[in-house]
Amino acid sequence: MTPSLGVCYYPEHWPEETWAEDAAHMVRLGLSWVRIGEFAWSRMEPEPGDLRLDWLDRATETLGAAGLKVILGTPTATPPRWMIDKHPDMLAVDANGQPRKFGSRRHYCFSHAGYRDESARIVAILARRYGANPHVAAWQTDNEYGCHDTVLSYSDPARRAFRIWLAARYDSIEALNAAWANVFWSMDYRSFDEIDLPNLTVTEPNPAHVMAFRRFSSDQVIQYNRMQAEILRAHTDAPLIHNYMGRITEFDHYEVGEDLDIASWDSYPIGFLSDRLEASDAHKQAFLRQGDPDMQAFHHDIYRRVGKGRWWVMEQQPGPVNWAPYNPAPLPGMVRLWTWEAFAHGAETVSYFRWRQAPFAQEQMHAGLLRPNRTEAEASAELRQVAEEIAELGDVEPARARVALIFDYPSAWAWETQPQGADFDYFRLVFAFYKALRSCGLTIDILPARAPDIAGYDLVLAPGLMEVGAPFVEALQAQNGLVVLGPRAGHKTDEMATILPEPCPISELGGALLLVESVPPSEVIPLQGGGAFCHWVERVAATETVAERTVAGDPAVLRKDGLAYLCGWPDAPALGRMLRAWCAERDVPTLALPEGLRLRDTATHRFVFNYSAVPLTWDGTQIPPAGVHWEMRK
Amino acid sequence: MTPSLGVCYYPEHWPEETWAEDAAHMVRLGLSWVRIGEFAWSRMEPEPGDLRLDWLDRATETLGAAGLKVILGTPTATPPRWMIDKHPDMLAVDANGQPRKFGSRRHYCFSHAGYRDESARIVAILARRYGANPHVAAWQTDNEYGCHDTVLSYSDPARRAFRIWLAARYDSIEALNAAWANVFWSMDYRSFDEIDLPNLTVTEPNPAHVMAFRRFSSDQVIQYNRMQAEILRAHTDAPLIHNYMGRITEFDHYEVGEDLDIASWDSYPIGFLSDRLEASDAHKQAFLRQGDPDMQAFHHDIYRRVGKGRWWVMEQQPGPVNWAPYNPAPLPGMVRLWTWEAFAHGAETVSYFRWRQAPFAQEQMHAGLLRPNRTEAEASAELRQVAEEIAELGDVEPARARVALIFDYPSAWAWETQPQGADFDYFRLVFAFYKALRSCGLTIDILPARAPDIAGYDLVLAPGLMEVGAPFVEALQAQNGLVVLGPRAGHKTDEMATILPEPCPISELGGALLLVESVPPSEVIPLQGGGAFCHWVERVAATETVAERTVAGDPAVLRKDGLAYLCGWPDAPALGRMLRAWCAERDVPTLALPEGLRLRDTATHRFVFNYSAVPLTWDGTQIPPAGVHWEMRK
Amino acid sequence: MTPSLGVCYYPEHWPEETWAEDAAHMVRLGLSWVRIGEFAWSRMEPEPGDLRLDWLDRATETLGAAGLKVILGTPTATPPRWMIDKHPDMLAVDANGQPRKFGSRRHYCFSHAGYRDESARIVAILARRYGANPHVAAWQTDNEYGCHDTVLSYSDPARRAFRIWLAARYDSIEALNAAWANVFWSMDYRSFDEIDLPNLTVTEPNPAHVMAFRRFSSDQVIQYNRMQAEILRAHTDAPLIHNYMGRITEFDHYEVGEDLDIASWDSYPIGFLSDRLEASDAHKQAFLRQGDPDMQAFHHDIYRRVGKGRWWVMEQQPGPVNWAPYNPAPLPGMVRLWTWEAFAHGAETVSYFRWRQAPFAQEQMHAGLLRPNRTEAEASAELRQVAEEIAELGDVEPARARVALIFDYPSAWAWETQPQGADFDYFRLVFAFYKALRSCGLTIDILPARAPDIAGYDLVLAPGLMEVGAPFVEALQAQNGLVVLGPRAGHKTDEMATILPEPCPISELGGALLLVESVPPSEVIPLQGGGAFCHWVERVAATETVAERTVAGDPAVLRKDGLAYLCGWPDAPALGRMLRAWCAERDVPTLALPEGLRLRDTATHRFVFNYSAVPLTWDGTQIPPAGVHWEMRK
Ligand SMILES: [Zn+2]
Ligand SMILES: [Zn+2]
Ligand SMILES: [Zn+2]
Repeated sequence: MTPSLGVCYYPEHWPEETWAEDAAHMVRLGLSWVRIGEFAWSRMEPEPGDLRLDWLDRATETLGAAGLKVILGTPTATPPRWMIDKHPDMLAVDANGQPRKFGSRRHYCFSHAGYRDESARIVAILARRYGANPHVAAWQTDNEYGCHDTVLSYSDPARRAFRIWLAARYDSIEALNAAWANVFWSMDYRSFDEIDLPNLTVTEPNPAHVMAFRRFSSDQVIQYNRMQAEILRAHTDAPLIHNYMGRITEFDHYEVGEDLDIASWDSYPIGFLSDRLEASDAHKQAFLRQGDPDMQAFHHDIYRRVGKGRWWVMEQQPGPVNWAPYNPAPLPGMVRLWTWEAFAHGAETVSYFRWRQAPFAQEQMHAGLLRPNRTEAEASAELRQVAEEIAELGDVEPARARVALIFDYPSAWAWETQPQGADFDYFRLVFAFYKALRSCGLTIDILPARAPDIAGYDLVLAPGLMEVGAPFVEALQAQNGLVVLGPRAGHKTDEMATILPEPCPISELGGALLLVESVPPSEVIPLQGGGAFCHWVERVAATETVAERTVAGDPAVLRKDGLAYLCGWPDAPALGRMLRAWCAERDVPTLALPEGLRLRDTATHRFVFNYSAVPLTWDGTQIPPAGVHWEMRK
Repeated sequence: MTPSLGVCYYPEHWPEETWAEDAAHMVRLGLSWVRIGEFAWSRMEPEPGDLRLDWLDRATETLGAAGLKVILGTPTATPPRWMIDKHPDMLAVDANGQPRKFGSRRHYCFSHAGYRDESARIVAILARRYGANPHVAAWQTDNEYGCHDTVLSYSDPARRAFRIWLAARYDSIEALNAAWANVFWSMDYRSFDEIDLPNLTVTEPNPAHVMAFRRFSSDQVIQYNRMQAEILRAHTDAPLIHNYMGRITEFDHYEVGEDLDIASWDSYPIGFLSDRLEASDAHKQAFLRQGDPDMQAFHHDIYRRVGKGRWWVMEQQPGPVNWAPYNPAPLPGMVRLWTWEAFAHGAETVSYFRWRQAPFAQEQMHAGLLRPNRTEAEASAELRQVAEEIAELGDVEPARARVALIFDYPSAWAWETQPQGADFDYFRLVFAFYKALRSCGLTIDILPARAPDIAGYDLVLAPGLMEVGAPFVEALQAQNGLVVLGPRAGHKTDEMATILPEPCPISELGGALLLVESVPPSEVIPLQGGGAFCHWVERVAATETVAERTVAGDPAVLRKDGLAYLCGWPDAPALGRMLRAWCAERDVPTLALPEGLRLRDTATHRFVFNYSAVPLTWDGTQIPPAGVHWEMRK
Repeated sequence: MTPSLGVCYYPEHWPEETWAEDAAHMVRLGLSWVRIGEFAWSRMEPEPGDLRLDWLDRATETLGAAGLKVILGTPTATPPRWMIDKHPDMLAVDANGQPRKFGSRRHYCFSHAGYRDESARIVAILARRYGANPHVAAWQTDNEYGCHDTVLSYSDPARRAFRIWLAARYDSIEALNAAWANVFWSMDYRSFDEIDLPNLTVTEPNPAHVMAFRRFSSDQVIQYNRMQAEILRAHTDAPLIHNYMGRITEFDHYEVGEDLDIASWDSYPIGFLSDRLEASDAHKQAFLRQGDPDMQAFHHDIYRRVGKGRWWVMEQQPGPVNWAPYNPAPLPGMVRLWTWEAFAHGAETVSYFRWRQAPFAQEQMHAGLLRPNRTEAEASAELRQVAEEIAELGDVEPARARVALIFDYPSAWAWETQPQGADFDYFRLVFAFYKALRSCGLTIDILPARAPDIAGYDLVLAPGLMEVGAPFVEALQAQNGLVVLGPRAGHKTDEMATILPEPCPISELGGALLLVESVPPSEVIPLQGGGAFCHWVERVAATETVAERTVAGDPAVLRKDGLAYLCGWPDAPALGRMLRAWCAERDVPTLALPEGLRLRDTATHRFVFNYSAVPLTWDGTQIPPAGVHWEMRK
């Protein structure tokens, strides 16, 4: 597969007489894809039923005629103002009970039937008109589900839909009361109609209640996207794509991905380091203009699996953005580095956001490939270089990794529902494992927990997997490599209850869970082998299967044959040490990379990336800051 | 009095066939009390009027037959879901105007007449049925009044009740306008019906208005509890108890205590250090698994007075809990230490929360004496040891202390209403005095400010007592020991106005208050004798009565005969020095204890507790971490 | 002009029999002005239409008979409780949609027509009754517009008024859609009635929408004040004054000032340092009891221009206040220093808040010239000294400064609307420039950006001036001195769009803006000449006009003839260095003052102020802490 480049474009923002030159310029830069349409509903249908698609016809034709392939977005993330008049209760409601008003974007509740019908209507109109258009080579559904915290809505329509969802999940209200153990604080219900959304309670609501609401909320996104996908499928053979975001865990991306052909995501390395990563000040300073060295790769690997192997970067940060706490410019070379890193992880296409920086409205401080005055911005030269390098390098085929890491959305909800420590977060835990693996120079696959194909991996890690369901257990039993579970793996049922009766992973390993502790950052529990547990530790009774102990003598790692269990959250030194030992056991070679240096193996090449702001040496080769190096795999 | 042990039990959570074995197991562990019923309303009355108390009959009988004494709780902290349908406006409303919804517990407003009637109804039903039951040896009213910030409610029923309360307090609206000085910003009212609750005002409301609302809110709790107590008294001779919480100051516990026989409180040392104590990071780290060395004792001493001498720990933390920011496990031995410390302060009974850890719902991460799988958790061995030690030691009779400290709930409200410094808090001030006294090895009584029996104490301290009322003044005059007032003592009238005309304590000592300062933590005012004032300092004009001055030469302590006044908030060094001097004057022996070591004298024994994580030496005896030592008083 | 002294007085707070003695005492202290009436509506009109002004007649007569000149305040900042019954929707609504209730002050929305009519009615009543009263020598409109965040209101009346305002500003809804570029996210409107206020949107609203709301909100204050001024003018020849606050930027003070005769402000140096200044902990500690050395002067210079040369301090802090996070007492001498500093900046009158400390209500902890018991508080002696010194010194005439600094309210709104960095703030930027100028010993004039009379200044600085409008450009062209623009100057149109097509200041200097960066406090961009850019840097392409470069080689300062442009936010070392160079170029002498020492030149005198807590030496003269020194100008 030869990688390709693209860009996001808004013909409705610019005079029609400039479209042709824009298209020609895109082609000159080496771009082959252009995404349009996803925010243009008010120009497609300025009054209810008054469709104005002639401009979109012409834009598609102009871009297509220039040789570009169009990705057409459904405009449902930005319903026009008149939609609110038709459906005043379509707005999502926040956890404090406030409607989230018109005036920006994503102002809809996934549970509102009227808006779902309106969405179906506009999608059908576009599908019928452009489904067979030769220039429309892909479709995007909506835009960034979940961005701006828009999955959870506490609206009346959401409450009604939740009750229906609960009635379908539980046979009877008695079954629900039993499953949630509503006896606990006299929380029993007499009918599904008595159940409210779990916000604004006096103290914490029942975690089973919260978890049900989280599952429901994810399902609403899945259903909404499926509705769009089914309509599009009826009219087009082009692949269907959604552009996911970074560190959004409120819906199950794997399930949304099942209904689409390609996963894509919107990669803003500098903004994400600034606004959504736990990291020391020193780390944030060291990578201020580069982004965290593992954040992009982590998402690349998630979305490769979400896309069942096919994935893109739909929006690549090309320069300073407008929405992070601070918005520095990328170090020269970083746009090229980010692009090549995506390709090294198997991306088919990297598309930049956006073509020309808007001189108006919310994102006027967000860089584009062109400046507002249409001169080429800094990133243009870098992607021109990438286009040339692609031509030289040719195909980049991803290899299956030898190491797999489980990332499970329901576990993220479970950790949020019942964190037990003030700074606990499932993404943080799994990302720490990912970072430790990458520090060892490993190439990684990320897998879901349901029915994962873990056979054949040398090492499978499933930190924090709250519920270890039957499919995963079956898959484990079929596994030949080493599977490492824990901390906190298999502790809960799918109703967010403590697993009881056993078995759980600990009992499988001949142990018994005595108690768990959460501790503040100032407290660590040192391990005999070096490093320590931090944040979370489980006190376990076990004898024969104890593979490692804490300095205090408590079991720290249980191990029997191909199954290991971690009785705590290991810090980076402990985790690196363990990973290297486990890999050695399976003859998986490891390295000890400095934090700025990262690598990724494809079937044919090894790519090396220098995320740091100083030159670093790789295997005798000096790689400059923001430098990319590749070599044939030995 | 021989101390006894108990436990909190939820028969409705467990299969009935396990009750008898649970009861037998309790007895084997040395427990004699078991509390039940307080959250079970939905199982007592699943539909309005459909009473199902047979299971409670059987549970009581099973427990009683095993030899346990039952404490029966009224279930009013957890009204069932159907209650909200009957009384939709019974929910409390937070300061932002949001109803606090069903779905956890304590979802009621104390001012709602309909809910008060429903509460009376269920209490009467239980009282009639179990008032003479031979196994029901005590009653608990409701559960943890004020927990989850539930005293202050800004609901419509609260507003109506407040107006009625005001009309009863003031003869006329003119009297109220005058008392509050509503002239200040044209805040005059023409009738009581114009008065709103003091939330959501543009800037701060009149402190007299806030203080009235605070007094009213406390009164609503008192009335609500009195209603339950009166109903129970009509049907039972068993003692009435409420289980108070830690650092809840929103209602006057002394007044609630007047209507009950025994005070009890719920002691969670590790959780409270984490979530409700100002302390340095180093202090929180040093006592991470033990709790603050003075927090429990302070509450023991408060609740001994609230119970007019009779008090319990109703819920003792037995292991990690689920609700603090971080939830580490107690150091081995701490459960025993906490238990003995309660006995040393005069507790009749220490009861653990809870019997068996629930594997479901909100508190599934909260340890019990048994684990979810019914094996004995860590605490069980410690309380078995305590049970044996009780048998050896026999009676523990509290002695009257030689030093008294005033703790006054209205002063807490006054400090919150008008703090003058961003980090000011009355509890914090009084607790600092308590800690200083304990560092001197002193045994302390805590007293209320109204009509306190201070005669006979060698030293009485009343820091921060905003209003020094007539009963206290009278009691002072009858006092033979040394009374130390200040800082900020007697500054206000009971309408939260500046005391004017005098007399106030300062003027009694021949001084005049010139001005007051609040200062940030970075600023201190050094004293000539060592140490400094911090947070708050009063500049006072005085001559003959000046007992100590600041380094700058201003009066710091006034003194005449048996009355002293502190013109500022002393830091720990200054306070320790002063306390030792005052005690020396009265021949009260003092020590200089390290922070981890604490002692308590009873009539016959001296108890020594090592709260630290390292061994400490007491009078030649090494006491291990979490160690308890006792000796006959010399 | 000989400066005079005054005080704020509340006859309605005190027994009438004490008024005469209070008045006599004021005169003895050297006061000649007394402000009354501004919070007394409920006593002027206790029931709707029931006017009771006899007490005000007598108070005015008593004060006047004693020789005092009365400033009569309109009482519209404190509408009585009955007003809310008449106009329940008159309350302002906060950004979360909550009405801001009665119970303190400023409880009205500027857009409410009913309340505007009520205000007009009471102002007319007072104007007719006292407009010709010989003792009423000045009028104050309302009190502290904008205090307690009261300019922006999200109420229904505000929404309706905003739509009318928009309809007047834009010819058609199409024009508005185009001006705001509502195409961006399908935000197009079909009529003005569809436009909501820009709060509670899902993510950020259109900055053009926000900016329009900010302009509208400022206009509502202007209109409301103009209404009062026009009514008063019809009945009196006495000067009209408003008392502005510190660091309030929500309305355009210059425009309000156009309708009045004298500007005044309420100066609380210690409170403001504590609660509204970015400063290091060390700085806040060093000036804890003095206030920031530049904060008062900055406001003096702003309000001198707002008052078109005539200005007062209406409320001068005389001791500890009650509303800051911490409220220490002024260092002895500071009240005198603050007073003389105001005179040095041209104040006609300094008036203290308040005469006698109230022993009740919200401000009972706020010091006055008298204590609650009527003894003289600390400040009284200092102002008696000032009164004597005034008599000795005679006239103080301000000189026109040689250096001017632009302060522009719309730029403050623009920076808030689109900060681009989490800690960005326009006031902070301009104040940093002011502080740097003062550190050079310079005397400064502050000017608005619209039609400023900048001709004749040697140096004019306009940092952060987002929109450089036509009047300013014209004025620039007529300027003979050096004009320094930037950072971020002229980047936006008046619709908050990126300036396009050019010209902008950068392009005027032959440059082109490539990109902008915001960076966290940890990051700086060093300059070749020393110091660095911080917070914000603009990457500019330029060649001949580059006057200075960053260490990395990028243009840092552009310069051509009398126009310079700063491509970033200079830190204090860089700015001081540049200022000294620019001044040297124009033969404006500069000094290097320590932070505690500040000076101000009038036409005849040089005043030197020691804000520090230690003695400092000025030109051979030792000035004690809080000391004031003056000398004839050489
Ligand atoms: Zn075509
Ligand atoms: Zn029995
Ligand atoms: Zn007269």
